[in-house]
Amino acid sequence: MHKFGIALIWALVYLATSASFAGSDPVLTQLLDDALADPYAYDKLGELCDTVGHRLTGSPGMKRAIVWGERSLQEAGFDSVWTEPVTVPYWTRGEEWARCVAPLDFPLDMVGLGQSEGTGGQPIEAEIMAVADWEEFEARKDEAAGKIVLFNPPWEGYGTTVKYRVNAASVAAEYGAVGCLIRSVASASLGAPHTGMMKYKEGIPRIPIAALTVEDAGRLHRMTLRGLKPRVQLSMEAANHDSVTSYNVIGDIRGSELPDEIVLVSGHLDSWDVGTGAHDDGAGVVLAMAAAKLFVQPERRLRRTVRVVLFTCEETGGTGGKAYRKAHKAEWSNHIFAMESDGGNAALHGFSVDADSTIVAAYAERLAPLAVLAPEEWRVFKGGSGTDVNPLVKQGVTGIGHQVDHTHYFDVHHSRADTFEKIDPDELSQNVAAIAGLIYLIADNPVTPGGH
Amino acid sequence: MHKFGIALIWALVYLATSASFAGSDPVLTQLLDDALADPYAYDKLGELCDTVGHRLTGSPGMKRAIVWGERSLQEAGFDSVWTEPVTVPYWTRGEEWARCVAPLDFPLDMVGLGQSEGTGGQPIEAEIMAVADWEEFEARKDEAAGKIVLFNPPWEGYGTTVKYRVNAASVAAEYGAVGCLIRSVASASLGAPHTGMMKYKEGIPRIPIAALTVEDAGRLHRMTLRGLKPRVQLSMEAANHDSVTSYNVIGDIRGSELPDEIVLVSGHLDSWDVGTGAHDDGAGVVLAMAAAKLFVQPERRLRRTVRVVLFTCEETGGTGGKAYRKAHKAEWSNHIFAMESDGGNAALHGFSVDADSTIVAAYAERLAPLAVLAPEEWRVFKGGSGTDVNPLVKQGVTGIGHQVDHTHYFDVHHSRADTFEKIDPDELSQNVAAIAGLIYLIADNPVTPGGH
Repeated sequence: MHKFGIALIWALVYLATSASFAGSDPVLTQLLDDALADPYAYDKLGELCDTVGHRLTGSPGMKRAIVWGERSLQEAGFDSVWTEPVTVPYWTRGEEWARCVAPLDFPLDMVGLGQSEGTGGQPIEAEIMAVADWEEFEARKDEAAGKIVLFNPPWEGYGTTVKYRVNAASVAAEYGAVGCLIRSVASASLGAPHTGMMKYKEGIPRIPIAALTVEDAGRLHRMTLRGLKPRVQLSMEAANHDSVTSYNVIGDIRGSELPDEIVLVSGHLDSWDVGTGAHDDGAGVVLAMAAAKLFVQPERRLRRTVRVVLFTCEETGGTGGKAYRKAHKAEWSNHIFAMESDGGNAALHGFSVDADSTIVAAYAERLAPLAVLAPEEWRVFKGGSGTDVNPLVKQGVTGIGHQVDHTHYFDVHHSRADTFEKIDPDELSQNVAAIAGLIYLIADNPVTPGGH
Repeated sequence: MHKFGIALIWALVYLATSASFAGSDPVLTQLLDDALADPYAYDKLGELCDTVGHRLTGSPGMKRAIVWGERSLQEAGFDSVWTEPVTVPYWTRGEEWARCVAPLDFPLDMVGLGQSEGTGGQPIEAEIMAVADWEEFEARKDEAAGKIVLFNPPWEGYGTTVKYRVNAASVAAEYGAVGCLIRSVASASLGAPHTGMMKYKEGIPRIPIAALTVEDAGRLHRMTLRGLKPRVQLSMEAANHDSVTSYNVIGDIRGSELPDEIVLVSGHLDSWDVGTGAHDDGAGVVLAMAAAKLFVQPERRLRRTVRVVLFTCEETGGTGGKAYRKAHKAEWSNHIFAMESDGGNAALHGFSVDADSTIVAAYAERLAPLAVLAPEEWRVFKGGSGTDVNPLVKQGVTGIGHQVDHTHYFDVHHSRADTFEKIDPDELSQNVAAIAGLIYLIADNPVTPGGH
């Protein structure tokens, strides 16, 4: 797309569709062209992933990332940059491993789940009870006592399959299981396990839980289907500690006419501690930074204030978003919208708008000129926004979600494969342009969509 | 394809192409239909991968596999089943790990390369010198002394890229490097490293070498491009020991009229010690077994002898094939062909024939009825056979290679991802049918292709 320039593409789209949008705004055209040509987001994402590293809440990497975020916004020329404290749960992984020890001895590729307890200073060892799904467990739950229960469900989309990650430990523990394993929640696998948060149910023993690779979960399950009784050792030093203080990183580019009115763009700075969180959510972080940065120069100042928030603790409890809501109560009604990008970096699909249908329709009309960036896929539709901006949405702020092609997101999500070389720089530029366009079309227009 | 039966497909192909091949051989039709419907290969491959496990030459797993192979051929009803001793190099991996320790501390996902020396009882630590390819190393070789040299070449196909795996250690050591790392030789990566054999050059220090994941190799390389000087610790207990004895497993189904004339179908029983060698080469093993097994029943006896060979030590030196050649010198001229399947299990593409062009043409004509199994892709062409049958080919035996779609083979090859759930059972049946058809069309025809 770079090669042709937005103006030409626009002309073609306009001719082809006779669309009614204002395809002739030269300021927007120049903005999108500048965004598409800007190497900033890609460079900063490489810096974050490769030289800061993973950013698990409470870890040294997340502390480095907060310093990196604050310094980056300052260097980018934001008018004011500051951090706000957030109380966050503090979980550490420690050393961990698993092995099948009988009838064959072989290592299992595993990763403990966030918030899981450890195994108490020594490995646990038990026979595997493998089930394909909740229904099979329900039918065989009386076999679970004393076992390590392995849930090996097929991938049926994140929303369905992630329930095993979140709930399996307590479901198994309720019937006496001493440990729990799940097949990684992943849409593809080439030998790496996928982590993520789990939750314990009140009043049920807190047994340790880890994800196996799709490969190893399948092997253990198939061994049981052949009548074998695999015994597994599981060792996890995982521990939940007292809460600690982390920080949201915030930068403002002050509006020229309506500085108290805010458009908020965001991603979350924390990540899991496998891979380097390139898609989840380093991409969201640099997209928000890079899109906003385009409005720092004096000739691009907008009527309203552009605010970037790099949230902490999205992965491990969502307290960053809740802390922002609490700290900014006096400003709630000043937020025109709050957008989060937290679905990885891939081909642009548009934006979802979490608001009343009339407002969604107004956004769809206002943002129509951005369809030029993704003529085949562009949609603005009523839908969710993001974990970190959702607390604001609950206070009446319009939430916006950045939408991209999700086909391969869960191939890498929460795994060692979520790394910088998986990022396509052209797609990243396309997304910077879309978010810059969103900012411009809302923050610089005297009338907000829906008129509020 | 199962659903329709070969007869119908055949009729359609015949009508559509007016091909001149003998599409009306009811024995062949029934054979292919039986092969496509037979669950034997898939069941045995699951058994091999899941309950025998990896089969590194010299390992307990390979010893189990030899017992499994011998017992399986006996149970399948082969007339004679035996093993033949093979002297094999014996290399053990031991514990191994790598970390980047400065300017950031993070683990590296690695796997030592076969035949590599270890690090001498303790980790080595050195700064990384990262290069993209041989040319960059040549230009900067004077920097290598005292460093761990990382070769991070892009994937350019196995034949080109594997040269880094084989040769990098000695190239780096010649200029004083103390260790060597390579980017995994892989066509795709989701966070697992790929192993394989390396070779030391005579007279050059034997430094340890390991493969990093594509992810970690890229990260270290990019860190150096940002001016950082990553230091890495590498610890490998790898060791080369005195040779040991392993075994080729052989089974014959005796020919009814020309029992001294042999058609040989094969795969290699050994594998790398990551994953379970499902594609490389468990698939080849069960394809040869399953295709030959169809001729055990009395009414399917063929004129010539069908021999299955499950070779040892393909991955770690190819001594299994050489030992077979030596042990069967008196039979060399009795081998009508020697086929190996060692390219994984995927959609059937046909067969390559390693012989004079007149013989290749004769095979192409004789095997034409098998095109019904893969109408779009079928090819019989002049090309290589396989590592283990190549010694026979050098003695004048016609070599045959089993050809399948290679698009995703190197995604899993020599990695933790080469596991049973990557096997498509329909493709496996298709390949059993093709090899069964090859056996039938050559071993039961009084005239051999090319008339020899």
